[in-house]
Amino acid sequence: MDNNIIAAIKKRRSIRRYTGQDIPDNTIEQVLEAGRWAPSGLNNQPWRFIIIKDTATIHGLAELTSYGSIIEGCRTCIAVFYHAPSGYNRDRDLMAVGACIQNMLLAAESLGLGAVWLGEILNRADEACALLGTDPGYELCAVIPLGFPGESPEKDRKPLSSLVIKNF
Amino acid sequence: MDNNIIAAIKKRRSIRRYTGQDIPDNTIEQVLEAGRWAPSGLNNQPWRFIIIKDTATIHGLAELTSYGSIIEGCRTCIAVFYHAPSGYNRDRDLMAVGACIQNMLLAAESLGLGAVWLGEILNRADEACALLGTDPGYELCAVIPLGFPGESPEKDRKPLSSLVIKNF
Repeated sequence: MDNNIIAAIKKRRSIRRYTGQDIPDNTIEQVLEAGRWAPSGLNNQPWRFIIIKDTATIHGLAELTSYGSIIEGCRTCIAVFYHAPSGYNRDRDLMAVGACIQNMLLAAESLGLGAVWLGEILNRADEACALLGTDPGYELCAVIPLGFPGESPEKDRKPLSSLVIKNF
Repeated sequence: MDNNIIAAIKKRRSIRRYTGQDIPDNTIEQVLEAGRWAPSGLNNQPWRFIIIKDTATIHGLAELTSYGSIIEGCRTCIAVFYHAPSGYNRDRDLMAVGACIQNMLLAAESLGLGAVWLGEILNRADEACALLGTDPGYELCAVIPLGFPGESPEKDRKPLSSLVIKNF
């Protein structure tokens, strides 16, 4: 039987539909706090966040992706950036940002929220950054809509036997 | 007060010294299982693993990094790869691999293991891949030594206020 951490990791699903209920500020902060504690090379912590609750800005972001209806339906969005001047190796720093995002997704689920990691909007990252008014050096990595779950999807994964390519 | 998922995320630390105790195979499998459940773009699951328990192979890996003494001290290493043919966008896939690694680090800690995410060995990734005999298309992303913890280090993080660059 799985312990509660492993059970939470296995249970987490991407949630793309939300109820209209607002998310308390303190809950958003707990999600970001979890992101803050991710590991990174040289402990450089190259992740940065923009919190978006403003309806017009959410609408503007939604217009930049074919998954706009997901963003339109959320109550709060977290935009996650890689701050290149804080990094040391882009590939490894991006993996650290991925760890940070995963911490936030796990924390969101543990707090009763639904979330999804959106990457397709990066195809129009320049426009998203212009909308958010970021300075040079901040590279958009993901947009994470958050809301109370309005669906309970199922999803599967490849078997472990197909992922372990060798044993020594 | 944090729930147990968020508490685990905040409590996890990189562990670089291990006792000599062997890790049961079932425990290693639980760690990999957690990695398997990470999210990825288009659910492409581009992560692959090699499990290394053989002393000579561990020694060979240790020779390829200035953090070799950490590898020498562990009981089992997981080498994590990006399988490019399974991917769709290298940057986003690498972030997904980072999410997979973070799941494994959290699972390891929850199982009483210590682990650390080693990236410096990627400077000699070609030699590591030659040692492990991987086929083309498998890109080494990280090496994760695992063992029962022989230290309890502390580490800090930047305050959240310095990471949230804007609010809308």
